[in-house]
Amino acid sequence: MFRLIALLVLAAGPLWAQSSALPSWNDTATRAAILDFIDETTDPKAATFVQPKDRIAVFDNDGTLWAEQPVYFQFLFALDRAKALAGADPQWAKTPALKAAAAGDVKALLEGGEAALVEVMAATHSGMTVEDFSREAGEWVRTARHPTKDRTYIDMTYQPMLELLAYLRESGFSTYIVSGGGVDFMRGFTDEAYGVPSPNVVGSLGKATYQMVDGKPQVMKDPGIAFIDDKEGKPIGIMRSIGQRPIFAAGNSDGDYQMLDWTTSADGPRFGIIIHHTDAAREWAYDRDSKIGRLDKALTDALAKGWVVVDMAKDWKTVFAE
Amino acid sequence: MFRLIALLVLAAGPLWAQSSALPSWNDTATRAAILDFIDETTDPKAATFVQPKDRIAVFDNDGTLWAEQPVYFQFLFALDRAKALAGADPQWAKTPALKAAAAGDVKALLEGGEAALVEVMAATHSGMTVEDFSREAGEWVRTARHPTKDRTYIDMTYQPMLELLAYLRESGFSTYIVSGGGVDFMRGFTDEAYGVPSPNVVGSLGKATYQMVDGKPQVMKDPGIAFIDDKEGKPIGIMRSIGQRPIFAAGNSDGDYQMLDWTTSADGPRFGIIIHHTDAAREWAYDRDSKIGRLDKALTDALAKGWVVVDMAKDWKTVFAE
Repeated sequence: MFRLIALLVLAAGPLWAQSSALPSWNDTATRAAILDFIDETTDPKAATFVQPKDRIAVFDNDGTLWAEQPVYFQFLFALDRAKALAGADPQWAKTPALKAAAAGDVKALLEGGEAALVEVMAATHSGMTVEDFSREAGEWVRTARHPTKDRTYIDMTYQPMLELLAYLRESGFSTYIVSGGGVDFMRGFTDEAYGVPSPNVVGSLGKATYQMVDGKPQVMKDPGIAFIDDKEGKPIGIMRSIGQRPIFAAGNSDGDYQMLDWTTSADGPRFGIIIHHTDAAREWAYDRDSKIGRLDKALTDALAKGWVVVDMAKDWKTVFAE
Repeated sequence: MFRLIALLVLAAGPLWAQSSALPSWNDTATRAAILDFIDETTDPKAATFVQPKDRIAVFDNDGTLWAEQPVYFQFLFALDRAKALAGADPQWAKTPALKAAAAGDVKALLEGGEAALVEVMAATHSGMTVEDFSREAGEWVRTARHPTKDRTYIDMTYQPMLELLAYLRESGFSTYIVSGGGVDFMRGFTDEAYGVPSPNVVGSLGKATYQMVDGKPQVMKDPGIAFIDDKEGKPIGIMRSIGQRPIFAAGNSDGDYQMLDWTTSADGPRFGIIIHHTDAAREWAYDRDSKIGRLDKALTDALAKGWVVVDMAKDWKTVFAE
């Protein structure tokens, strides 16, 4: 009897898994394409079977796993941190850019151009241990609220993508984040938000130094950028940190083009997926002309490259994490 | 009955595991200290219990997991590659340094000083995809033979350390390599040799570029060094790639000092271990005056820092992988 039940459960497994998987995705061709790819790479009898150690899936973060409007959340974190630092020490905001940041005056800050932005990011992302910085970033993501959506940032993550990450892991994939965002910022929340632990987070790198602080050795965040994990930096960052070419890549902007192209142009089963922000009612609608997360060339080339384009308005039952 | 057996097995588990663990280690205070640390961090009832996600163990490679005499094996790989490249294209060895490398004339090469060594490393570690380079390194490690020990390099790994890596993983630790060696070189063999897959390898980084090659995007190895994962670079490399401070660190030279100090000076249970090369009969004996793997300050400070020093001659039943 036990054996019979076991056989029935085993036989029903894939079908049951398919029908119950990704519940926040509508039953469209997009969902079917994702499930088919996972099926064909995990079925030991399929010619397209991929060994678990090669089931590497990489995800961009901003605009792919959580929202990125009206501006990258890490920048909003920098503004809040500038305000707190200036509050604790009025001498801190000693330049026009830092003054504008501390006052939350984005317009004045943008008038300072890229130099002002770089200055604010450097001043708010240094002078503490990497570990303390990540803790602070995590605290902010859990408690600060988005300016228009009345949600904490951790609730600005996308429910369908959380389900996709979890389903890939259940299917023996290793899931990684590969983002232009700062790695120390992301590590403050990726485990809690996405189930992606620190070692699986690849991102832009700030400079760091090893120093004795109060008699104890520490790795301190320094001003300045050591590596930008965007565009052609994404495949390079993957080879630096993971050392293997993924078989699955997800992105939402032209900054992900090279990662998608490099992932999907190699031999064997490959999957590229683009999140297209088409949902002005529930989220935002933007693509070719957006300053944040511009999606132009990747959208034009998606069909020829075989990349699946997610239409948020049509493919997603719900948008934000519940 | 089944329940009784289960209870007996569970009760006997830790004791049985302890007595059978690390079979190539002699029954000394060193082995006991290792086993005690693993016990106290994995016993859920102990005040020193550490959650699995924080059980990060890092290992230096050269001189810690495999031998490093008469010279780092990656350098011997570079010489063999120079010979092969010059054999395929006589124009390749167009400078005195490359000529000396291709001829295996180490004496002439050393006369060229550091500039000559850097030139040889750059010329032999570039001009191909990262993936092809790692494959080639792995092939060499599996087939080329050590100049004096009549073993392949993969058999120059230390049996007691392979057992320690495996026992840590069985105990819920994640094991990482953190080495001054090149990450692309090590990834060619670390999974096979140590059970440490590519994403868990942290090392020095060569420069790389994203390029179209025959119409396909590739990450190519370029001449030049992007990051040196040695001394203070080791804690920085760990925070870049792993993003968490380890609780267990193993090394063998002053190049590991900062990694050991940073790992063991934080709160909670911590373990630092130094492999001391004391076995001229079975391996090599060297420490304070060695050009390769100099162990001086770390040996002096080990007692005060609470680091366990492995005496290879006394603590290890066997040395090389079997």
